[in-house]
Amino acid sequence: MEGVDHLASERSRAQFDVEEMKVVWAGSRHALEVSDRISRLVASDPAFRKDNRTSLSRKELFKNTLRKTAHAWKRITELRLSEEEASRLRFYVDEPAFTDLHWGMFIPAIKGQGTEEQLQKWLPLAYKMQIIGCYAQTELGHGSNVQGLETTATFDPQTDEFIIHSPTLTSSKWWPGGLGKVSTHAVIYARLIIDGKDYGVNGFIVQLRSMDDHLPLPGITVGDIGMKFGSGAYNTMDNGVLRFDHVRIPRDQMLMRVSQVTREGKFVQSNVPRQLVYGTMVYVRQTIVADASCALSRAVCIATRYSAVRRQFGSQNGGVETQVIDYKTQQSRLFPLLASAYAFRFVGEWLKWLYTDVTQRLQANDFSTLPEAHACTAGLKSLTTSATADGIEECRKLCGGHGYLCSSGLPELFAVYVPACTYEGDNIVLLLQVARFLMKTVSQLGSGKKPVGTTAYMGRVDQLMQCHCAVQRAEDWLKPSVILEAFEARSARMSVACAQNLTNFANPEEGFLELSADLTEAAVAHCQLIVVSKFIEKLKQDIPGKGVKEQLEILCNIYALFLLHKHLGDFLKTGCISPKQASLANDQLRSLYSQARPNAIALVDAFDYTDHFLGSVLGRYDGNVYPKLYEEAWKDPLNDSVVPDGYQEYIRPMLKQQLRNARL
Amino acid sequence: MEGVDHLASERSRAQFDVEEMKVVWAGSRHALEVSDRISRLVASDPAFRKDNRTSLSRKELFKNTLRKTAHAWKRITELRLSEEEASRLRFYVDEPAFTDLHWGMFIPAIKGQGTEEQLQKWLPLAYKMQIIGCYAQTELGHGSNVQGLETTATFDPQTDEFIIHSPTLTSSKWWPGGLGKVSTHAVIYARLIIDGKDYGVNGFIVQLRSMDDHLPLPGITVGDIGMKFGSGAYNTMDNGVLRFDHVRIPRDQMLMRVSQVTREGKFVQSNVPRQLVYGTMVYVRQTIVADASCALSRAVCIATRYSAVRRQFGSQNGGVETQVIDYKTQQSRLFPLLASAYAFRFVGEWLKWLYTDVTQRLQANDFSTLPEAHACTAGLKSLTTSATADGIEECRKLCGGHGYLCSSGLPELFAVYVPACTYEGDNIVLLLQVARFLMKTVSQLGSGKKPVGTTAYMGRVDQLMQCHCAVQRAEDWLKPSVILEAFEARSARMSVACAQNLTNFANPEEGFLELSADLTEAAVAHCQLIVVSKFIEKLKQDIPGKGVKEQLEILCNIYALFLLHKHLGDFLKTGCISPKQASLANDQLRSLYSQARPNAIALVDAFDYTDHFLGSVLGRYDGNVYPKLYEEAWKDPLNDSVVPDGYQEYIRPMLKQQLRNARL
Ligand SMILES: Cc1cc2nc3c(=O)[nH]c(=O)nc-3n(C[C@H](O)[C@H](O)[C@H](O)COP(=O)(O)OP(=O)(O)OC[C@H]3O[C@@H](n4cnc5c(N)ncnc54)[C@H](O)[C@@H]3O)c2cc1C
Ligand SMILES: Cc1cc2nc3c(=O)[nH]c(=O)nc-3n(C[C@H](O)[C@H](O)[C@H](O)COP(=O)(O)OP(=O)(O)OC[C@H]3O[C@@H](n4cnc5c(N)ncnc54)[C@H](O)[C@@H]3O)c2cc1C
Repeated sequence: MEGVDHLASERSRAQFDVEEMKVVWAGSRHALEVSDRISRLVASDPAFRKDNRTSLSRKELFKNTLRKTAHAWKRITELRLSEEEASRLRFYVDEPAFTDLHWGMFIPAIKGQGTEEQLQKWLPLAYKMQIIGCYAQTELGHGSNVQGLETTATFDPQTDEFIIHSPTLTSSKWWPGGLGKVSTHAVIYARLIIDGKDYGVNGFIVQLRSMDDHLPLPGITVGDIGMKFGSGAYNTMDNGVLRFDHVRIPRDQMLMRVSQVTREGKFVQSNVPRQLVYGTMVYVRQTIVADASCALSRAVCIATRYSAVRRQFGSQNGGVETQVIDYKTQQSRLFPLLASAYAFRFVGEWLKWLYTDVTQRLQANDFSTLPEAHACTAGLKSLTTSATADGIEECRKLCGGHGYLCSSGLPELFAVYVPACTYEGDNIVLLLQVARFLMKTVSQLGSGKKPVGTTAYMGRVDQLMQCHCAVQRAEDWLKPSVILEAFEARSARMSVACAQNLTNFANPEEGFLELSADLTEAAVAHCQLIVVSKFIEKLKQDIPGKGVKEQLEILCNIYALFLLHKHLGDFLKTGCISPKQASLANDQLRSLYSQARPNAIALVDAFDYTDHFLGSVLGRYDGNVYPKLYEEAWKDPLNDSVVPDGYQEYIRPMLKQQLRNARL
Repeated sequence: MEGVDHLASERSRAQFDVEEMKVVWAGSRHALEVSDRISRLVASDPAFRKDNRTSLSRKELFKNTLRKTAHAWKRITELRLSEEEASRLRFYVDEPAFTDLHWGMFIPAIKGQGTEEQLQKWLPLAYKMQIIGCYAQTELGHGSNVQGLETTATFDPQTDEFIIHSPTLTSSKWWPGGLGKVSTHAVIYARLIIDGKDYGVNGFIVQLRSMDDHLPLPGITVGDIGMKFGSGAYNTMDNGVLRFDHVRIPRDQMLMRVSQVTREGKFVQSNVPRQLVYGTMVYVRQTIVADASCALSRAVCIATRYSAVRRQFGSQNGGVETQVIDYKTQQSRLFPLLASAYAFRFVGEWLKWLYTDVTQRLQANDFSTLPEAHACTAGLKSLTTSATADGIEECRKLCGGHGYLCSSGLPELFAVYVPACTYEGDNIVLLLQVARFLMKTVSQLGSGKKPVGTTAYMGRVDQLMQCHCAVQRAEDWLKPSVILEAFEARSARMSVACAQNLTNFANPEEGFLELSADLTEAAVAHCQLIVVSKFIEKLKQDIPGKGVKEQLEILCNIYALFLLHKHLGDFLKTGCISPKQASLANDQLRSLYSQARPNAIALVDAFDYTDHFLGSVLGRYDGNVYPKLYEEAWKDPLNDSVVPDGYQEYIRPMLKQQLRNARL
């Protein structure tokens, strides 16, 4: 961090201990130490340079990523990094690659769905990267509806093999990351057919490419599906297409933890409960929520620092102009996102705990909390990824024109992030699952079955349908109990209203379809309540460090009151609060923005991101934006020559009115 | 449109005359004929191919654009196209280029700010493209605050010249399109300095490059500012950086329609009113609103067609699955955007009329409507561009995973469109201008000064503060008078509430800053009212064609009720409607979606876009999506070889555990 710190005066205004906040953000002193050390390791290694990414051609870009993954793996083994350190290293290298799917989907799928023998055979190979695997579920014709997959795996009792086949064009596997060019193996999902009978979708381990020369094995057609959103961004990944022409695999490559096919071709359900699959989903989605807080905090860090550097208007008598971060409109767009980043961080932390809890219960054969945990992770995945995608783009707009330059880092961050709204469950489809769960919860309220976990508040539904918000002055909105009650009442009332409307339909399934837009809104209300309540719970913990807890309280209130303002219609329509109380909330929110203002820079410093990781001229730690923007510009290939290629053929003839005879 | 029409059954369900709707969308039979003919001309010319755009390197991409602009100009002159036809041709070529700024900003700036002699000297050169011009206002340090520009134009009475100079790094011109590599000339904005006195910002025509060899003239440093959002997209444009080192231009190159500098160095204001500048702004922003409806309709066309092709879930007994367009959640996201596209089209049409009206009044020295027209165009620019940017991204999400592929056309459409939220006035800064105008209007209500034009309803403020919505049944929401009253009451009440809150501040300017977030919301409410009311006005016209008006009525109601739902908090908080009435509006909205459903495909067909213009595999007219997606994939450069470049160096050593000694 060379030279003058243009943001020094901002930093000196902070009213809390930034180093302690870093610990809170990281989760623990240990986590901070690891993150800090590994991020600096990556930042200082020229092999991990990424500033030229947006100007590389697809082939150059991809080869470059292969180089980085190999280099990363080399460093991981050389330095004997722990699993935690290795995963941090991949994170800070900050480039989507086949390794994400290998570690994040292929291995967990085998772990979750393989038998003991299968784990023993495949995991050591995968851990050493002697094989590279991907996760091939989605097909050209089916994504959300996994039960509609068309690929077949037909048991051949003669040879004790499965024959994997793509019967139609739409059955081509389509999208799996790492499939296009790299993976040697895949976990693929296909309909199990025995003796002409369809046993539904199951997972299989299939080798795709030769270990000798990397050529696709006989019967396999595989390639990359082409350019995706943005330059750089997700184009470092080889999302692939895959077709099978009667490819044979041994019977023991079906993942058989839950269902088995015997030598005789008998289909057997093991005594392992099917619900185990949900455990893996809880795991994967929990990592997605954690990623959301990372991506959003990164965008917020860039926009906040630049908003403190950027000055526009308001100069009196030739003095300096106003920093745009001082405009209330800028604050009302930026600070809720800052608060959201912290909120998502804490709910992510809690989800990690939830996953451990669920896993322990599963081991003890207790499935009681699973549906609730599953609905909750599905909903939080949807909520946080949608808000993050929108939030990154808002941060880009908050940077005015300069945010549109790749050197701001924001276009690529957006482009690489947005598919999180679609993969691992389309966000709307997930909300519908949450809604289904909520309707079930409401319908069982009379039955004496007590709602658990994040739906426990539904147990107090009678009270919540009646309660009146007690706010009389703006400051009353700072009380956690007041906020919680308002959010609980809103969510409960929306769910109950939906449930009542459903009773107007003779066929409940038809009713669900007809009212599905309202149902997704009830699901959102429920999920927002979870985030708010987990933030409030976090604040009940002992949090050391001067001023740290006070800042988090401000952020928590900003998050809650911003949501209240944004979804005011819900709160008013269900009668949870009055118009007068809404105005008071708004007044309180403005005052919270003023309180957050002097701490804004320090609050983003607490993310502890290196300039390398941020990858943004606008978000530089030292705030030295303009000279660096200027410097970056000249690196564009178009500036290689003063007169552009094409002048002689196209521009000159136009200017000289000599186009008539030109061949163009 | 080869082969089978997979959407034929959809088309046959339409309940209106599509050909007549095409006329309505185009604006007239003549406009339709021109658009249709020119779009086919472009689509059938292989020189205008654009499907490879996202895989080209920056240099290839840019050269390719130069070729296309030259080819377009050649065709325009060969075919002796009219001005209207030529501009349609540039539109359908659909590639941002220096010509956009030449025709859209350079020429209008000279026309608006030049004297008669200046027009006679410069326009003929520009019309024949013997010179190419750009519009250089923004600097590295100043965009929104034009009065803060730092470039100086100092009058030298000795030589009768201005000396153009960039005194600081931040005074570098930065962003102007066409500046980086192509323009020979620019209209630049600089502080006029005479005898040490600063006369504020004025416009000057400056030659940048030699007409002989295209090299920058002495004292001029110029280049491209680098990669922007997305691949392809706006990277076809050479947005530029420009620095002046004491560059001299003759005095008569200051644009002197409004202010003049005499030979003696006297600064003189002409009797032409300064407000004229606003006339140009009204013009430019009106074109931006028209562009918004084009961009949004394009995205909606893609998402609608694909939603009818895509099937997911809901298959009974192995039958076909449900088209995703039949899901109410899909409809509730898609149809409001379809309605918005039509709404923006009509408000754009009306703005064209407004521009003519304002121009005629200016010529008759009537400035009375100018502030209102200016606020109204500023607000509509902000409203329509923000909604369009968000809408395109929503359409992309509506296409699930496949929307993330460049071959869907949506990523590039988004990336190329979003800067419209920033250029020609940052959307928030514009809303603040609208709010300022609204506060002025409210404050003058008592004075007897009658609000005009789009603020006329404020004249009925007493009644609007009192009125009670009369809706009792869902169908009541179909009455234009009911909708209008609700929107007028909401907007008036929000403005009045802001005005009242402002009186709590001793210093009104401070109050404005403090309440600015609320003020922008009042501005949005006002602008939405304008769009709704112009849609309703349009429907009062005679609109021929079977079922055409009925469909437009459905869309108008969808647009209004969707806004009501989205901003329900405003309507409830200000007491314009009751919670019960809100529920009825929601019921009505659902039923409108069902009415729109069978007509959806025909309603997007009415945009009359060719497959070339749409540039989307998902949006193909014939709905033949899957084979074409599959075909497109294989064209990616990564698929040139089966084993990727980099396998030997990076993948193989990893698999073979031989990285240790590798140089990476
Ligand atoms: C970058 C990226 C990486 C990916 N990586 C992998 C991978 O490694 N492995 C893998 O197997 N897959 C992968 N995928 C695929 C991904 O999992 C799917 O795209 C995702 O599941 C969404 O499914 P879809 O594309 O079929 O969307 P669709 O289901 O076709 O969605 C289209 C629209 O229909 C709506 N819709 C669908 N069903 C319903 C319903 N029942 N009710 C209401 N609305 C509905 C959706 O909301 C959406 O608006 C990846 C995708 C992307 C974009
Ligand atoms: C693709 C593209 C093409 C362009 N083409 C041209 C061109 O041809 N010629 C040309 O001259 N320029 C051009 N521009 C520049 C463009 O006009 C400016 O970017 C635009 O005016 C916005 O100004 P800014 O970038 O300074 O934003 P800023 O004003 O720096 O905005 C930053 C943030 O500050 C906020 N803000 C600023 N002022 C206030 C205020 N008073 N109150 C509250 N909030 C405020 C904004 O809302 C925003 O969130 C182009 C820009 C782009 C992106």
